[in-house]
Amino acid sequence: MYKTIGIVGGMGPAATADLMKKITDMTDADCDQEHIHLLIDSNVNIPDRTAAILHGGENPVPELLAASKRLESIGADFLIMPCNTAHWFIPALECEVGIPFLNMPAETARLLKEMDVETAAVLATDGTVQSGLYEEALRAEGISAIYPDDEQQKTVMSLVYDYIKRGILDPAQLPHDEMAAICSSLRARGATAVLLACTELPVAFDIMGLYEDDCIDPTSVLAGAAIREAGAQLRPGVRY
Amino acid sequence: MYKTIGIVGGMGPAATADLMKKITDMTDADCDQEHIHLLIDSNVNIPDRTAAILHGGENPVPELLAASKRLESIGADFLIMPCNTAHWFIPALECEVGIPFLNMPAETARLLKEMDVETAAVLATDGTVQSGLYEEALRAEGISAIYPDDEQQKTVMSLVYDYIKRGILDPAQLPHDEMAAICSSLRARGATAVLLACTELPVAFDIMGLYEDDCIDPTSVLAGAAIREAGAQLRPGVRY
Repeated sequence: MYKTIGIVGGMGPAATADLMKKITDMTDADCDQEHIHLLIDSNVNIPDRTAAILHGGENPVPELLAASKRLESIGADFLIMPCNTAHWFIPALECEVGIPFLNMPAETARLLKEMDVETAAVLATDGTVQSGLYEEALRAEGISAIYPDDEQQKTVMSLVYDYIKRGILDPAQLPHDEMAAICSSLRARGATAVLLACTELPVAFDIMGLYEDDCIDPTSVLAGAAIREAGAQLRPGVRY
Repeated sequence: MYKTIGIVGGMGPAATADLMKKITDMTDADCDQEHIHLLIDSNVNIPDRTAAILHGGENPVPELLAASKRLESIGADFLIMPCNTAHWFIPALECEVGIPFLNMPAETARLLKEMDVETAAVLATDGTVQSGLYEEALRAEGISAIYPDDEQQKTVMSLVYDYIKRGILDPAQLPHDEMAAICSSLRARGATAVLLACTELPVAFDIMGLYEDDCIDPTSVLAGAAIREAGAQLRPGVRY
């Protein structure tokens, strides 16, 4: 009997569905009953995390806490959050919730260390970038973080907020060439890994066909870590 | 403020992730906070529904009920189940649960009536076929149901249980030609709609590229009905 995974989701809903699909696809199971019990609260009432960290927006902690407690109350053994920026609030949540969180930036940094990455490019929301979430997690493993320049960062934010979160998923409409150029320039600056460190970005990169071998998807890393933490096995051939 | 949707899932997990993605993609929303609050219990401990209906297998009602009550306890306003066969047990659940279920076969039959379909082919598990779930829902709208022959039905069951539920999602491995032939023969017998009436089948048809205009996906129909029931709008251009 595996542990039950609680998913504090809705940030955004597309990223939550993506995480659920990844956990399902990556679990070594031959029938429904061999999968892991998942409890998901796709709580779309959680205020925007970047706005709260950078611009004095509404505090997301009460809604994050409400979802966490609901999942705890119905039997989750541990929690994961398919939103990188939300990880900034984990210290405030851990005081009030009786079950542990798996930490996506920490799990990702650990994997990069295993891969001998020395410099990683971080593509993320302004909130994740400016809060230093990944910088800190990477530094703990001895890895340097580099970021898009200001103009490039605007394109990343636009891809997340103006396209994916609005449900614009048509490849022809997405800023493919701009994103490809941003990735190239980060590689030229020495990055040997490109972190898609906003959970909407793997969705976007999939649609745009921009996945290269050096692209690391923290959502998949988190899915793999959660499968192992639950006590199940990864399907043979799965990367993380 | 929309109603909160509870999803009694895990039957299978891939179908549950598929429903979640469809609700998200089909909702007219421009940011996280405009989506619908979803609570999902992907309860993989629910015993196989076909085995229970046809072969004296373990009764799934206790686990279906447990998941339904968990979702009710944390605030779901109504429930949906991304498993057609599980709908056979709704009468037993409705007695014990204080919130209503939206019914996937009934919603699908209503849509077919609107489309002036007179004869529909039902691709489903043995449990759904032999329990007459769709036959009854279709008859209530004056629509005739036809089914694959015994040999063809074995292929449908194999696609669901030997491939999709086992996580075999590689298009080259799936029985594309057999399924295409089954659909053709059902059309030749007069079907003007092909119901993918097991929630694993839309996943399979997507992968195999077998979707034709006359294929009806009850998972999408249920997603559309749930969005409307919650009080939200369908994204412009969405089919159902």
